[in-house]
Amino acid sequence: MSAWEARADRLAALVEERGLDLLLVSNLVNVRYLTGFTGTNGAVLIGPARRAFLTDFRYVERAQRQITGYDVVRGRDDLLETVAGLVRDWDALKLGFEDTYLTVRAHAKLAEHLRDAAELVPAGGLVERLRAVKDDDEVAAIRRTAQLADEVYRWLMSDFGLAGHTEREVALAMELRAKELGADGLSFPPIVAAADNGALPHAEPRADGRIPRDTLVVIDFGALKDSYCSDCTRTFATGEVDSEAREVYELVRSAQAAALEAVHAGAELRAVDAVAREMIAAAGRVEEFGHGLGHGVGLEIHEAPRLAPTAEGDLEAGNVVTVEPGVYVPGRFGVRIEDLTVVGPDGVEVLTSLPKDLISL
Amino acid sequence: MSAWEARADRLAALVEERGLDLLLVSNLVNVRYLTGFTGTNGAVLIGPARRAFLTDFRYVERAQRQITGYDVVRGRDDLLETVAGLVRDWDALKLGFEDTYLTVRAHAKLAEHLRDAAELVPAGGLVERLRAVKDDDEVAAIRRTAQLADEVYRWLMSDFGLAGHTEREVALAMELRAKELGADGLSFPPIVAAADNGALPHAEPRADGRIPRDTLVVIDFGALKDSYCSDCTRTFATGEVDSEAREVYELVRSAQAAALEAVHAGAELRAVDAVAREMIAAAGRVEEFGHGLGHGVGLEIHEAPRLAPTAEGDLEAGNVVTVEPGVYVPGRFGVRIEDLTVVGPDGVEVLTSLPKDLISL
Repeated sequence: MSAWEARADRLAALVEERGLDLLLVSNLVNVRYLTGFTGTNGAVLIGPARRAFLTDFRYVERAQRQITGYDVVRGRDDLLETVAGLVRDWDALKLGFEDTYLTVRAHAKLAEHLRDAAELVPAGGLVERLRAVKDDDEVAAIRRTAQLADEVYRWLMSDFGLAGHTEREVALAMELRAKELGADGLSFPPIVAAADNGALPHAEPRADGRIPRDTLVVIDFGALKDSYCSDCTRTFATGEVDSEAREVYELVRSAQAAALEAVHAGAELRAVDAVAREMIAAAGRVEEFGHGLGHGVGLEIHEAPRLAPTAEGDLEAGNVVTVEPGVYVPGRFGVRIEDLTVVGPDGVEVLTSLPKDLISL
Repeated sequence: MSAWEARADRLAALVEERGLDLLLVSNLVNVRYLTGFTGTNGAVLIGPARRAFLTDFRYVERAQRQITGYDVVRGRDDLLETVAGLVRDWDALKLGFEDTYLTVRAHAKLAEHLRDAAELVPAGGLVERLRAVKDDDEVAAIRRTAQLADEVYRWLMSDFGLAGHTEREVALAMELRAKELGADGLSFPPIVAAADNGALPHAEPRADGRIPRDTLVVIDFGALKDSYCSDCTRTFATGEVDSEAREVYELVRSAQAAALEAVHAGAELRAVDAVAREMIAAAGRVEEFGHGLGHGVGLEIHEAPRLAPTAEGDLEAGNVVTVEPGVYVPGRFGVRIEDLTVVGPDGVEVLTSLPKDLISL
């Protein structure tokens, strides 16, 4: 059985469990997860008894060749009308829809096209639940993307350097290098944040001012390849840094290592976060760690599950999550160290292969 | 009065005209249009009597410094709760919302937070209507972005060339050049489509196979700078092309020139499209022109108005639209020529400064 069919089977089971005859999947990321479709207009109708993929004339031929496990239906430009027609033809009475995605206007249109033939039931998040647990094909794709990003970092470390460039030049050079190495793009705009800019967790690279010697530089960078994202942060030095900077670096490094030790199937999401947070708190710096420990990565750069103090639930085997504690000293510098990991039954596979010593470029 | 205040005044007038006390603007592109805000969590509440901008702790300090004409309110992570609180405090009874943007779930949450204090009224598209008519600041920003993209094309023509590169190499080189020249990014993934690939209006650049000599290459490229998009297509030759290719090129060029002549405030949208379409039809090629003549460009690459056979309404002074007829000969080649224009009271300002002769690279 192909990965596509296995995903469809799992989703059809969830749809049945919810008491629905059909689920309309219209979020294109979820459609891609289910079918591999990468165009701009497509939807899936799926239930225990039926599976259809709908698209318009522009994509229908390619879809008929490439999509397996679904009847490929050529719809009108407005696929909602076609959806309603199928729902009526199939005598489905309860149609679930992604209320976290469908707009109020699209919902009203769909209801109008249905002419009371079926009840519309909010059912967002079902595909996202499946997506949180990666299958082997997905882990392989994420591993390849992470390896490519690691190569970009290695090139930065061995060839390009940091001091003397602007932050923006570094960000742009890494992007270009990733594309030369075969990336389809980046998973988010890179962060290259030297000195005081490093104290802002989501700093934008500055086009003015060269990165000075003897400071810390936080780099957060991810590639996109074959639809899957990667995510990795390293903090580098540009020469000698003072004892506080070295101390904070070692604190974050230890907290990250301890948190990695805590990652395994069955671990509580908030307990994994707490491992790093308590170490940082013991050093009197918990106020300087103002974000969650990590997040899921897959087709999107932020997906389920979250590792955070308020997260509910446990890690499952097949989750792909970042582990990225940080300490941000306002006006001075920041340190963040982030690996991408696959949760296994007894522990963790770290997909990031870069060193974690404080390296000076 | 600043451009921001003028935009807010125009929107407040539309809100009042609709009989609403307040409009919630939650589409972030519309929020950026109204306030300049570029973060990831922000919303505007606006009406004849009140104007507030809401964001969370991450952005509130920057917003207080940068945003004029609105009370800046620090909200919770879930801004909808804060929105509902303000609506109740202000005794607003009719709250419009962007039904083309707000999801069914967000709408349900908002209704819950409102506790029947106000009626929720679908009112999508109001900001988009304003955005279709650019003010002077916007035209200036689009002009700068278009000039930057023209420079990229000139560099391609004088330095980089086409034959011998892959389509993907050309696309990547143009992207890098744009960023070197100060672009923040591109307005869409570039199209570089040689020979038979040129016959697909939305072809993806191929990574395999070099662009051959003696063929046509369609390049569709736009930059993004200071939040505004540009859009420009040129078709080049790589040496000698046959008489049919030259003939189609001249046809498209004449149709594009005639359509530009027809652009002025008050012209019917479909009539401008018809000028080019009828010339292409007279040459027996109307089936090979399978898209509309043009579209609005601004903060987004596709916005109102559309120039198409089914479009309703007239051009207005201040519209910024593309004029881009194309002819696609399946399996052989395509030709498209596209300029970006500003609609004036009596005619058109063409923002694209590149030549339209058939140039061989």
